[in-house]
Amino acid sequence: MYTLVIYDITDDKLRMKIAKVCEEHGLSRVQKSAFLGKITSVLRKSLIDKLRIELGNQKGNIQVYMIPDELVSLRVSIGSGPPVTDEVIIL
Amino acid sequence: MYTLVIYDITDDKLRMKIAKVCEEHGLSRVQKSAFLGKITSVLRKSLIDKLRIELGNQKGNIQVYMIPDELVSLRVSIGSGPPVTDEVIIL
Repeated sequence: MYTLVIYDITDDKLRMKIAKVCEEHGLSRVQKSAFLGKITSVLRKSLIDKLRIELGNQKGNIQVYMIPDELVSLRVSIGSGPPVTDEVIIL
Repeated sequence: MYTLVIYDITDDKLRMKIAKVCEEHGLSRVQKSAFLGKITSVLRKSLIDKLRIELGNQKGNIQVYMIPDELVSLRVSIGSGPPVTDEVIIL
């Protein structure tokens, strides 16, 4: 199972903190404000806890999705950007 | 099956066009640069085609993910932001 984190945060410092939390939990950047990775449910829970702590009462929104492996391999990526895996389909 | 579109586009005009294509295909905005919706595979294919045409050779990256219904209902949303469905879990 993959975990996808997308966030909408205007504060530069906070945005960098959120990115760091994602990286520390084994996710890789797939867009400027999106991280993806195949991590355990234990790690995902820790990630969600940390994201919640970091955001606190500050302005912004973070969403965490679970995506099955077979659907991540069907992901469509259009245009340039940091690739995640070799399974990425460029249309 | 849900379709999630996330994009990383700096040009304001192009970003608005991409958002419009997502809306026209039945998706709802869940973040500034993310749209989500339960649409048919036919509509998803049309969406991908249109996104590809709109982006063309311009700078940017668009990613399209498929997420099963039961996993969308487990989505975690932290902080403020436009909600999608009543199933959204606010931690």
